[in-house]
Amino acid sequence: MPPIPNRRVLFNEIPPADGYPIPGKTTVYDTSAEIDLENAPLSKDSILVKVICLSLDPYMRSRMRKPDVPGYVPPFILHEPISGHGVSVVLRSRNPHFKEGAHVRGFMDFAEYCIIEGDGFPMQSLILLKNDLQLPWSLYVGILGVPGRTAVFGWREYVKPKARGVAFITTGAGAVGSLVIQLAKRDGMKVIASAGTDDKVNFMNELGADVAFNYHTNSTKDILREHGPLDVYWDNVGGEVLDLALENAAFSASFVECGMITTYNSTNAYPFKNMFNIISKNIQINGFLTRTLLEKHEEEFLQIIPKMVGDGELKYREDITSGLANTGSALLDLLTGKNTGKSIVIVNEGNSIGRFPKSVM
Amino acid sequence: MPPIPNRRVLFNEIPPADGYPIPGKTTVYDTSAEIDLENAPLSKDSILVKVICLSLDPYMRSRMRKPDVPGYVPPFILHEPISGHGVSVVLRSRNPHFKEGAHVRGFMDFAEYCIIEGDGFPMQSLILLKNDLQLPWSLYVGILGVPGRTAVFGWREYVKPKARGVAFITTGAGAVGSLVIQLAKRDGMKVIASAGTDDKVNFMNELGADVAFNYHTNSTKDILREHGPLDVYWDNVGGEVLDLALENAAFSASFVECGMITTYNSTNAYPFKNMFNIISKNIQINGFLTRTLLEKHEEEFLQIIPKMVGDGELKYREDITSGLANTGSALLDLLTGKNTGKSIVIVNEGNSIGRFPKSVM
Repeated sequence: MPPIPNRRVLFNEIPPADGYPIPGKTTVYDTSAEIDLENAPLSKDSILVKVICLSLDPYMRSRMRKPDVPGYVPPFILHEPISGHGVSVVLRSRNPHFKEGAHVRGFMDFAEYCIIEGDGFPMQSLILLKNDLQLPWSLYVGILGVPGRTAVFGWREYVKPKARGVAFITTGAGAVGSLVIQLAKRDGMKVIASAGTDDKVNFMNELGADVAFNYHTNSTKDILREHGPLDVYWDNVGGEVLDLALENAAFSASFVECGMITTYNSTNAYPFKNMFNIISKNIQINGFLTRTLLEKHEEEFLQIIPKMVGDGELKYREDITSGLANTGSALLDLLTGKNTGKSIVIVNEGNSIGRFPKSVM
Repeated sequence: MPPIPNRRVLFNEIPPADGYPIPGKTTVYDTSAEIDLENAPLSKDSILVKVICLSLDPYMRSRMRKPDVPGYVPPFILHEPISGHGVSVVLRSRNPHFKEGAHVRGFMDFAEYCIIEGDGFPMQSLILLKNDLQLPWSLYVGILGVPGRTAVFGWREYVKPKARGVAFITTGAGAVGSLVIQLAKRDGMKVIASAGTDDKVNFMNELGADVAFNYHTNSTKDILREHGPLDVYWDNVGGEVLDLALENAAFSASFVECGMITTYNSTNAYPFKNMFNIISKNIQINGFLTRTLLEKHEEEFLQIIPKMVGDGELKYREDITSGLANTGSALLDLLTGKNTGKSIVIVNEGNSIGRFPKSVM
């Protein structure tokens, strides 16, 4: 078999810190590379994979920076493929853990095919997927991947659910927020949930949110004053909304700091007016990275969540982009709030291996 | 015995939210009242006390507000005595729990004598003091009172001490901070401690701080960059220093939010630049009010701390004002950082009942 095209998405230019990444400028779709699937050399322990699907996530914005700027995830490398969480099938392997035909989840290039070297980071991130329930592979970058774990681990670790207490969840139609709404409702809480389109509001209502609202057309301040005070605040946005949540917190409230998307494309510092409430209202604020809770909560997650998803007890939505060509605009849509549900790029056929669970909405 | 003078400090005028309370204006020393110690009528369960000493605390500033402004402690009442934590001896009693001659700790008026009514808040706050170790009564508003409990409870509850880790403690020469420094050193940590005068820096050095500095003459930013990152931040100041601590936090740092004195006399909102570090550095922030931890930690406190203080194992300083006349300026000194150690007004004789512990510095 002769070499075939290996289409990729390259990091092309560093965007200004206070601007959004521009499709075709910040990232470019590259069709010039080729790969010889049968003969591309593999070093010891490396694997050649065909990428099935890739996750788009807000944190990717922080990787679009100069190499000398520190950060909690490494910067993308200019003129190399961007990378992210995905699911692949192994085409050739020199690694005994990941044999030909196996499906793996972890970090990989935004490319149709890629070689994952035998040592170092991307290989260390790989997990073998069994998928006994034969769920679509794309779920493993969403509700059964990092976003699902973020919601479940964070909720389990940092929230003391209070029946009839009030939880406020921002970006409630997103991959994490949509699951947090359901966890809060299962724990008997009243849920206030915000998002930026009416379609998202409908979705949050379907998930069981008691007060779902579009923050573009409603005053978050008024809603929180009317329906608070907040026993739990799940923050995905930061800035002004975090300050309003502090203003409207109940005594001994728990704040889970999961994301601050309003700050990722801006260098403006928000002047917080309600920081003293942290003390006067006895508030606990927990910032977290999902990986820090893996050891403690992974086993319970695997026992409970996939089955609940398969049985349709937990709902989710996917916002699918077909093919790598539109990755740049799909990422911009995510950062500007145009997606509803988990943002995924389907790269190659092979996503739907079995039945879709009943819960797909 | 005829009526005798009962000198008091009255709340005279509400200061502007962005200004300091002015002695003689915000509060006035009043010498016009009299009390008949033998015949003043006592309702059921009430007591008449002679006030020995009173605590001055930063939170008192928040009580100097209009009655309709919400807050976590009730506002002072105009033209009535201000009140605070103090120690008194009971002169007459209709309350079986607090007999004549007993010493009590709790909320009471800034007055030489006061009647504490049988029901309601001030009475509920009273605790009978045994003082088996015959320590000066003033300690019961300092290292053996609320500030001591604030330090010990907060440290025990929210800090996972890390030997050779770094703790940064602000207002390190104050009633709380000076004890926190010692707790951190006893747990093997490296201590960075800040205060606003060279005298305070000397005191913090005597307490064992590794890097004690005057924030007026040194750059907090530079010190934290050189001696961090911070595993523990004990915040008594808020605002810019809290933001710098977020910038210089270690991964999985613990922040204890105990006070934000830089914000109490100002309405300026501080523009935080490093809030996202809460997430990226997996930071836990715990705001707390001492009373919320009382049930859990009081017994251990009583078993350990008074003996350590009596044995000179824990050091402290008192900043004594004699007589009520100078209360207003002593409170202003506290709010502007001119005191070193616990700020106390000695109202009546009877403080020194036994030996002073060896640790008085």
